Amino acid sequence: MTEATRVRAVLAYDGSKFRGFAENPGVRTVAGEVRAVIERVLQQKVSITCAGRTDKGVHAWGQVISFDVTSPRFDAAKLMRSINSMCNPEIVVRDVAVAEPTFDARHDATKRLYRYRIFTGDVMNPTDRFTHWHVREPLDVDAMRQAAKHLYGTHDFSSFCRRRKPWPDGTPVTMHRTLLRTDFIVDGELLLFEIEGSAFCQQMVRAITGTLVEVGLGERAVDSIPDTIAAKERTAAGDLAPPHGLTLWHVTYPVTAG
Amino acid sequence: MTEATRVRAVLAYDGSKFRGFAENPGVRTVAGEVRAVIERVLQQKVSITCAGRTDKGVHAWGQVISFDVTSPRFDAAKLMRSINSMCNPEIVVRDVAVAEPTFDARHDATKRLYRYRIFTGDVMNPTDRFTHWHVREPLDVDAMRQAAKHLYGTHDFSSFCRRRKPWPDGTPVTMHRTLLRTDFIVDGELLLFEIEGSAFCQQMVRAITGTLVEVGLGERAVDSIPDTIAAKERTAAGDLAPPHGLTLWHVTYPVTAG
Repeated sequence: MTEATRVRAVLAYDGSKFRGFAENPGVRTVAGEVRAVIERVLQQKVSITCAGRTDKGVHAWGQVISFDVTSPRFDAAKLMRSINSMCNPEIVVRDVAVAEPTFDARHDATKRLYRYRIFTGDVMNPTDRFTHWHVREPLDVDAMRQAAKHLYGTHDFSSFCRRRKPWPDGTPVTMHRTLLRTDFIVDGELLLFEIEGSAFCQQMVRAITGTLVEVGLGERAVDSIPDTIAAKERTAAGDLAPPHGLTLWHVTYPVTAG
Repeated sequence: MTEATRVRAVLAYDGSKFRGFAENPGVRTVAGEVRAVIERVLQQKVSITCAGRTDKGVHAWGQVISFDVTSPRFDAAKLMRSINSMCNPEIVVRDVAVAEPTFDARHDATKRLYRYRIFTGDVMNPTDRFTHWHVREPLDVDAMRQAAKHLYGTHDFSSFCRRRKPWPDGTPVTMHRTLLRTDFIVDGELLLFEIEGSAFCQQMVRAITGTLVEVGLGERAVDSIPDTIAAKERTAAGDLAPPHGLTLWHVTYPVTAG
């Protein structure tokens, strides 16, 4: 039997066309589409691991996946061309390469960077409506910057995460994550919010964005954020920002991995 | 009988959802949609004049229209809100205002500015596919700049325009137009092409863009442009650039008009 080759690929996709990344029988998902194409091209079953399971409607520019290939004639460039010709234009493969045999797109990722686009002007260009959240009132970006700093470091982010059932053995699912950096880049009426962390729980980036926008609107105090974290209750934080403003932008791995 | 009020409005739209601006029975057009909504709101017939009849698939950020309103209780802000609530999200009204009684969105316009977005990298973000032309080979932007300068001034642009039948009395339709300015703004892998002229014939901006891209690809010489103009034959110029990269960006009027 031929030894498997571990493969790493980088994907960009238009999240508005999918019911999220993760496979879900009967609905169109990014993983389902990509897996089916890889299986058709390579004539083998594959199982895909990803760096970040983006929700329904969330875009990606730098999603990373890993999977095993058993064909002895595997050609990374050819597979990339094949996936691109079959998945275009909604999914684009940016890179396919042979990885270290132990590479795991999820576990080896050390940082995930998301970008959230907010349009703050009165009238948004209709062609931006699939990629920008239109917030019609003015935002106090300095207040948002200060509030975001309260989130830095390692916390139990339960207030910002979709509640999860315990593991089958009863162990609660940990919501501890480490937030490393945020940036608020103002370009005219566009506000680009960048957020980088070790990892994010489900809906965490959108809950943080929604909460910070409430701070920017003056509906929530800058200094209330520590109490919001301490509450460990989803209702303590703000509403979810809509998915279409969010893009999984970049995933970082140690130089040795992948 | 109440005297009519001349109204001026500025529209933005996602051209990918319409079969062009101009009314065309049985198909969805921007003018058809906006007229129907205005007629429903004001309970009167209206006839719309526009600054630039954008083709199928072409977007607008600054399309200007004019029309007459007969209702004595006409309220510009209210009409704007009504159109926006009924046409959203594919058409957005940026402004509605009472104009001078003689204002004509088409005849009074002194300059039209179009923007064409080209993406020149290997992999384009899938969410940019509705607004950017993906040209996969490198472009010599300096050559494009030099070629564009040959088009400046007033010419018979027949080589760049869709052929038109003569007027009913046999007079040929003039293709004389004045090109005022072009700009090529490079931002990483994005090339933003701006082109401003007195007016443009049908398909003229896309034919110029397509021709300049052929120059940028080295398929057409910079100094061939004067001969291309002189040929006055559509086949002398390059292929049409696709409509989805093009946006009618801004229309200029004399300060006194509108």
